[in-house]
Amino acid sequence: MDIRHLNWSKTEKAIAQKAFNLALDREFEEVIQEAKGRAAKLAEPDDLWSLERFLTRRRKEIDRRYDYRYSELPFVFGCLIREGRLSLEDLRGLGEDKLDYVRRLISV
Amino acid sequence: MDIRHLNWSKTEKAIAQKAFNLALDREFEEVIQEAKGRAAKLAEPDDLWSLERFLTRRRKEIDRRYDYRYSELPFVFGCLIREGRLSLEDLRGLGEDKLDYVRRLISV
Repeated sequence: MDIRHLNWSKTEKAIAQKAFNLALDREFEEVIQEAKGRAAKLAEPDDLWSLERFLTRRRKEIDRRYDYRYSELPFVFGCLIREGRLSLEDLRGLGEDKLDYVRRLISV
Repeated sequence: MDIRHLNWSKTEKAIAQKAFNLALDREFEEVIQEAKGRAAKLAEPDDLWSLERFLTRRRKEIDRRYDYRYSELPFVFGCLIREGRLSLEDLRGLGEDKLDYVRRLISV
């Protein structure tokens, strides 16, 4: 099955958008909490540049991983479930073509 | 007078090093406090990347401005005094050749 050319109904698009935003919000919240924790402990110049590198790395990771093209979404969702950021429950309502791909990805 | 080719005695070098470190420590402390303040108020993803940009900008500014080559030091000290990070008092003991240049720079 070529997941790059699946059809997405309007309902599926809404479900996908919601799940995507949920994971993204959780990810941002995680970075915010980590940044607050690191900032509270800032003591040396090196800590500053370490905080800077942490933020740069997380921004690039998020940019790279959260790809909202429909051709990429099943793969993105599979990765997010593997990482524990989403559950299959969050994708309930997507067609079996997408869910089947996601299930296979997370069981690899 | 070409400030790039002044002679620095051992005592002058020690005074310069002390003043330079004093200004640099104050600068780092300022960035640390500002970063802590910004981090404490982090609420949105944009705040994260704004904190990242702030750190990158301050790191580059500090790298550029704190140039410890003796050929540059009188100019560096003049700038630091103009910015209120050092006072002429901190440079007491430097030769008149350096102080004269610094005084002229801060009176421009």
